[in-house]
Amino acid sequence: MDPGSDLPEEYARVRALTEALAEPLSAEDQTVQSMPDVSPTKWHRAHTTWFFEEFLLAGEDRDYRPFHPDFRYLFNSYYEAVGPRHARTERGLLSRPGVAEIAGYRAYVDEAVNELLACPPERGAEVAILGLNHEQQHQELLLMDIKHVLSVNPLRPAYLSPAGTTEGARPGMPTVSGSASEPVEAQWLEHTGGIIEVGAGSEGFAFDNERPRHPVILAPFELAARPVCCGDWLAFVHDGGYRRPELWLSEGWAAVGREGWTAPLYWAEAEPGWDIFTLTGPRPVDPAEPVCHLSYYEADAFARWAGARLPTEEEWEAVAVSYRPECGFLDPGVLHPRPAGTGAIFFGQVWEWTASAYLPYPRFRPGPGAIGEYNGKFMINQQVLRGGSCATPSGHVRATYRNFFPPAARWPFTGLRLARDPS
Amino acid sequence: MDPGSDLPEEYARVRALTEALAEPLSAEDQTVQSMPDVSPTKWHRAHTTWFFEEFLLAGEDRDYRPFHPDFRYLFNSYYEAVGPRHARTERGLLSRPGVAEIAGYRAYVDEAVNELLACPPERGAEVAILGLNHEQQHQELLLMDIKHVLSVNPLRPAYLSPAGTTEGARPGMPTVSGSASEPVEAQWLEHTGGIIEVGAGSEGFAFDNERPRHPVILAPFELAARPVCCGDWLAFVHDGGYRRPELWLSEGWAAVGREGWTAPLYWAEAEPGWDIFTLTGPRPVDPAEPVCHLSYYEADAFARWAGARLPTEEEWEAVAVSYRPECGFLDPGVLHPRPAGTGAIFFGQVWEWTASAYLPYPRFRPGPGAIGEYNGKFMINQQVLRGGSCATPSGHVRATYRNFFPPAARWPFTGLRLARDPS
Amino acid sequence: MDPGSDLPEEYARVRALTEALAEPLSAEDQTVQSMPDVSPTKWHRAHTTWFFEEFLLAGEDRDYRPFHPDFRYLFNSYYEAVGPRHARTERGLLSRPGVAEIAGYRAYVDEAVNELLACPPERGAEVAILGLNHEQQHQELLLMDIKHVLSVNPLRPAYLSPAGTTEGARPGMPTVSGSASEPVEAQWLEHTGGIIEVGAGSEGFAFDNERPRHPVILAPFELAARPVCCGDWLAFVHDGGYRRPELWLSEGWAAVGREGWTAPLYWAEAEPGWDIFTLTGPRPVDPAEPVCHLSYYEADAFARWAGARLPTEEEWEAVAVSYRPECGFLDPGVLHPRPAGTGAIFFGQVWEWTASAYLPYPRFRPGPGAIGEYNGKFMINQQVLRGGSCATPSGHVRATYRNFFPPAARWPFTGLRLARDPS
Amino acid sequence: MDPGSDLPEEYARVRALTEALAEPLSAEDQTVQSMPDVSPTKWHRAHTTWFFEEFLLAGEDRDYRPFHPDFRYLFNSYYEAVGPRHARTERGLLSRPGVAEIAGYRAYVDEAVNELLACPPERGAEVAILGLNHEQQHQELLLMDIKHVLSVNPLRPAYLSPAGTTEGARPGMPTVSGSASEPVEAQWLEHTGGIIEVGAGSEGFAFDNERPRHPVILAPFELAARPVCCGDWLAFVHDGGYRRPELWLSEGWAAVGREGWTAPLYWAEAEPGWDIFTLTGPRPVDPAEPVCHLSYYEADAFARWAGARLPTEEEWEAVAVSYRPECGFLDPGVLHPRPAGTGAIFFGQVWEWTASAYLPYPRFRPGPGAIGEYNGKFMINQQVLRGGSCATPSGHVRATYRNFFPPAARWPFTGLRLARDPS
Repeated sequence: MDPGSDLPEEYARVRALTEALAEPLSAEDQTVQSMPDVSPTKWHRAHTTWFFEEFLLAGEDRDYRPFHPDFRYLFNSYYEAVGPRHARTERGLLSRPGVAEIAGYRAYVDEAVNELLACPPERGAEVAILGLNHEQQHQELLLMDIKHVLSVNPLRPAYLSPAGTTEGARPGMPTVSGSASEPVEAQWLEHTGGIIEVGAGSEGFAFDNERPRHPVILAPFELAARPVCCGDWLAFVHDGGYRRPELWLSEGWAAVGREGWTAPLYWAEAEPGWDIFTLTGPRPVDPAEPVCHLSYYEADAFARWAGARLPTEEEWEAVAVSYRPECGFLDPGVLHPRPAGTGAIFFGQVWEWTASAYLPYPRFRPGPGAIGEYNGKFMINQQVLRGGSCATPSGHVRATYRNFFPPAARWPFTGLRLARDPS
Repeated sequence: MDPGSDLPEEYARVRALTEALAEPLSAEDQTVQSMPDVSPTKWHRAHTTWFFEEFLLAGEDRDYRPFHPDFRYLFNSYYEAVGPRHARTERGLLSRPGVAEIAGYRAYVDEAVNELLACPPERGAEVAILGLNHEQQHQELLLMDIKHVLSVNPLRPAYLSPAGTTEGARPGMPTVSGSASEPVEAQWLEHTGGIIEVGAGSEGFAFDNERPRHPVILAPFELAARPVCCGDWLAFVHDGGYRRPELWLSEGWAAVGREGWTAPLYWAEAEPGWDIFTLTGPRPVDPAEPVCHLSYYEADAFARWAGARLPTEEEWEAVAVSYRPECGFLDPGVLHPRPAGTGAIFFGQVWEWTASAYLPYPRFRPGPGAIGEYNGKFMINQQVLRGGSCATPSGHVRATYRNFFPPAARWPFTGLRLARDPS
Repeated sequence: MDPGSDLPEEYARVRALTEALAEPLSAEDQTVQSMPDVSPTKWHRAHTTWFFEEFLLAGEDRDYRPFHPDFRYLFNSYYEAVGPRHARTERGLLSRPGVAEIAGYRAYVDEAVNELLACPPERGAEVAILGLNHEQQHQELLLMDIKHVLSVNPLRPAYLSPAGTTEGARPGMPTVSGSASEPVEAQWLEHTGGIIEVGAGSEGFAFDNERPRHPVILAPFELAARPVCCGDWLAFVHDGGYRRPELWLSEGWAAVGREGWTAPLYWAEAEPGWDIFTLTGPRPVDPAEPVCHLSYYEADAFARWAGARLPTEEEWEAVAVSYRPECGFLDPGVLHPRPAGTGAIFFGQVWEWTASAYLPYPRFRPGPGAIGEYNGKFMINQQVLRGGSCATPSGHVRATYRNFFPPAARWPFTGLRLARDPS
Repeated sequence: MDPGSDLPEEYARVRALTEALAEPLSAEDQTVQSMPDVSPTKWHRAHTTWFFEEFLLAGEDRDYRPFHPDFRYLFNSYYEAVGPRHARTERGLLSRPGVAEIAGYRAYVDEAVNELLACPPERGAEVAILGLNHEQQHQELLLMDIKHVLSVNPLRPAYLSPAGTTEGARPGMPTVSGSASEPVEAQWLEHTGGIIEVGAGSEGFAFDNERPRHPVILAPFELAARPVCCGDWLAFVHDGGYRRPELWLSEGWAAVGREGWTAPLYWAEAEPGWDIFTLTGPRPVDPAEPVCHLSYYEADAFARWAGARLPTEEEWEAVAVSYRPECGFLDPGVLHPRPAGTGAIFFGQVWEWTASAYLPYPRFRPGPGAIGEYNGKFMINQQVLRGGSCATPSGHVRATYRNFFPPAARWPFTGLRLARDPS
């Protein structure tokens, strides 16, 4: 969102969406942490609230009294400057506070924020906008995380009913759909290279890691017009992709052996073919839809198999900047990657692994104080992803947006797009 | 219970108590597994129900149709003969079925069991009685487990309000109390030794591991008239008990170092003295109450420090057989060990570690089929505990009862009683 | 050995045997620790020397000056009363002191001990005898350990050449042999039971854990006249013994799955049949020789499969007391279990797992000071083994001898003998 | 080295140096693997030999007969295309082949290589040169690894005697020296930025990861004229550098807590000040010498503390290209970083962490076949280091050389140099 918009209205919209996303989930669903990377739904609801409490209310409102003295400890995620905090790996051990108390926490903070936003002090609007972008990130995390939680349950329960059925269709909530189809032909977009500028300019909201804007040299390259699709991936699998060490980075090949990977996360062998677990439950893989839930290692191996490579984040941005993202689950109402359209590059169905390590841009400066821990301290051992996914809130991303995950991460909505050097 | 009692009535009573124990707990509380040894409350409610479904209804009622096709997989605990099952360490990853569905499961099975018990087939009564004793064991496990779940929460929430307060006083539910006091003087009961018989006779219900009754030779010995109390334990702590390797078994000393033990589980240093976490929340340690939540290693080290030793299970039984257990939370309404009385040995406040390994009695025969897995296959690397605890259902134990845990276990209601050789 | 014998002569004999056992091994061989349970050969040579230095020389000779100030730290195994020590799991990380320096250490200490033994002070002879028995235990450990070290090497090297070949035949060193044969028929020895006495009397050398002698009641039982042989074990394997959970203790079945056990340690599938790795290298399994290198779990599962059980240590002793052990590698010159003879029970080819947990005898008293740590502090989570093995030094064992290992241990020379209840 | 030099002579020189480096080490020293990253000395001697056997002799000499059929399995490090291999973590479990057999292996291969090099077939010279550069890399690894092996020994043994003493001074072997001194003043070298070319050109030997040469844009920057010295590091330590989370990357701070870092590897608190363990044993830290044995996390935290940053690899190369490396232990005879000189930038005392992730250059092409696994498959989760160290063989490095390690690695000779943006 942009500071130009109506901040209180935007605040209400974003905060309500979080609650709408949690609404189909029972108290039990909201409590489970299925692996260390995952946080319980009710933790996301509380942590995003704490962010406003800690950085907006405690910082800008001297009369504010915290909702509960221990929440600063319980719901601080990783801000060392704020103080000690509950262990990340133990979020699923907390039955209290329960979902009802967390709803009360959200209402309490919303009231105080609304009062503040009626006449925001200096820096307050800026922090509020960061808080809303932060909460949008957690909306996607909430969906990634609950998908994993449900996936480890042998009952294979759905988060939502498939579109077209009545069950689970609630006002204001996304609906979903899916039907098998043929992928569109892969096409290559040519770029002449040269000196280009990348990164966010100084106007408008962007995370600190997108700045400053700076020049880079690019050699001529070609970028695929659509992400790699499940049909492409099936060809890789059938060609022994997961059994040929020459295609893999050494760490990736070790992961294949250790984890027993034979397909993307959430794929399961079925008769015939493969099933895929989605937020609407299991169904057959659709060859036309972008392949999703891949590690960087798999993306990299696929590119090598295809005689291509992953784009750098600068190459990606150089092309993407002229397109509008088509992500956002609110508008299209989809929580699974849709088959790529024809005729136009688009991004926004899956996060696309790039060949670039997640490192600071030249002259990068993190924000002041605890807020400075938001991005900068994670700039090691991660790869940049560009684009945006079917689980990214509408309006949240842009061509300069830098997402990042460790190379082994598969539970985000991760996919890939090929690049190649002109011959 | 005894086959002579009214089985349907007993069934109703035991099943209702499980639900009453779960009643103060939210859906979130019932979902969490705080360590591999712990099972979620809702799992206990479902597993005990599955036990009747699998061994009584499926075995004896040819028209019975299972409630859900996957529950045999989800709620089988460890019966290899029944088939594959959900991993024990992942019980806390299951948000579904939720507490409401499990309540439905219990009602569905109760109806079928009631019908069956109206006119039980051969062997049906026997299995039903085993099922009720099984469920009573899980009532204690449920309390042990939820105590641990709540204890790892930094909010230190209580399962019940302390007695005398109105909150949490529900009909049919235990109440609790506690007030600091002085321990009674320790006294020694003398036993002349000789050839005695131990183990359960063939009449009445007993678990297979209590049989057959058989003779043993005992040398003369003395047994303390009461369990070791917290006051005694404080003296051990102050005398450097946790810092003196000469008092400890080698494995125990390694555990002290690795785990950083300085006191029993649930003790925390406070000003002044020590606090203890109970099912009614934290409060100061009461010197007069039996010390509880100890590993075998700690019990053994204390005995060495005290110039005494732990009794064998046969010594314990030889004395205890003339006493009536005073455990059972229903009647006295207590979920924490009460201070030992005077003038009479009693057992039933804490499970008492014995010096005996958990091994089969001579000519032990496990039950037929899957039921045979109930006890026998655990007869290695565990120690026998005798007695019964404040969390053991009334009427469940007897002098021949053999409880067992690995030496490192601390989350059961474990304590100790000293023995010594006459000089 | 017995205090009546010539102590200096016995000292020379035992110490020389250790060196003879190390002699076929290179400096590299003597350095490796192949798993935490294993110690390097050169560590055994140094630790046994340290035992005399610490408990005999430092205790009894006020003029003694230690060989090296750091060896008390490096070569103390587990004596807390002596002080801190090098981590057991890191013994294989020490290249220094090398084998030459350790030879010098042994010579230095030998000289001082010889001087002392010429006119031993009070208690000195007793400690020296304990030191020699200790060193004999380490002679067997040295052989167990180097067997494991060599077994993990893909080159499958031999410790010794097979008997009959010239290479490796050294004066004073064991030789080895082996040829396939048929097992003798299994026979049962009957025992009427009753009150018997077990344990070592007060005369002669015995470890503290063998005392005091005390009465036990035994029901009538039968004991097999020979250990279980490889031919018997092959029948168990062919009958799916490693694939049938109903035969196994729960912990044992977990180990089968986790470790992938399909046969005893050192067995490997070959064409046809099975090969076995021995101290003279790999060769086919001989059906007639006692099966060896089993965990307690496997022994227990086999007994259940055979419709029998393991004997208790008291049952074993009640029978074995009338036989002479036939172990000891020096005299017969064998480092692998020999096929059982006919007509007489014998023990001494494999350590036989018993059904008894390793616990103190009634009124057990460990020795004074650090020496008291020798046995007592390990009395938990281990099972007693009786007998003696092909790798036990001649003259070291007796019918009352209690060996002990955790149930999962397979690298000792462990086997089993069946018992059963008369019908 | 360069193809222009006399290849047989160069072969003899490099191979002899490896043996000279191993010469002060006993058989025991050469056997130990002190952590998974470390390989035993004798493994290095054999693996470098295997490299010539596999890639030169087996590839180019059809009459060649391998020395031992199992060495292809034992001494293949990570070449998937060659086949299965012995586990890296178990190299220290192999006592055989011993050092003598490995010396024989080296002589056998040397003879065959010498014969081949007398008249090398096409591609043979190229592979031989790669093999020599490979062996030089292992010479440094051998020194890094044995330093770690010796460091974990409580005896703190030295690899070499300090220079000036007679012991250990062998012809052809490095000598060492060290005396405390003051660091030279830190100076900044200015660079105007602009478009520059980096990477190796097509002439002469370079590893594939140094190519192809390509243009990059640099903003103006300043680079320190010398690496950070121990004196600088002491100031960081005294200022609480290891206790202030705001200075650290998140992963780095986690490592500080988990590993208990309070200083570089091999530093130990002493009275007064700090000791450092070197290849000549322990001695006091010298403030003037470059700080060494740091993780990337520590280097990055120091730079942040100093108000500076690490240079990118391109910045580093842009400056270094005009200087000659001053590393190489043969010529100066030093195995520890020497105090930085004055007046000129130099590199070659420590490997300098850069801010650049180890990724392929644009249009990077790995070599054909198994050789292609040399560098490319490690291009993830590692950082580039530039320079060269006191343990790098003379003549081995150049300004375009890209070394790489995971950010947590401390056992290489790693240090850092600061960069900053002009204000």
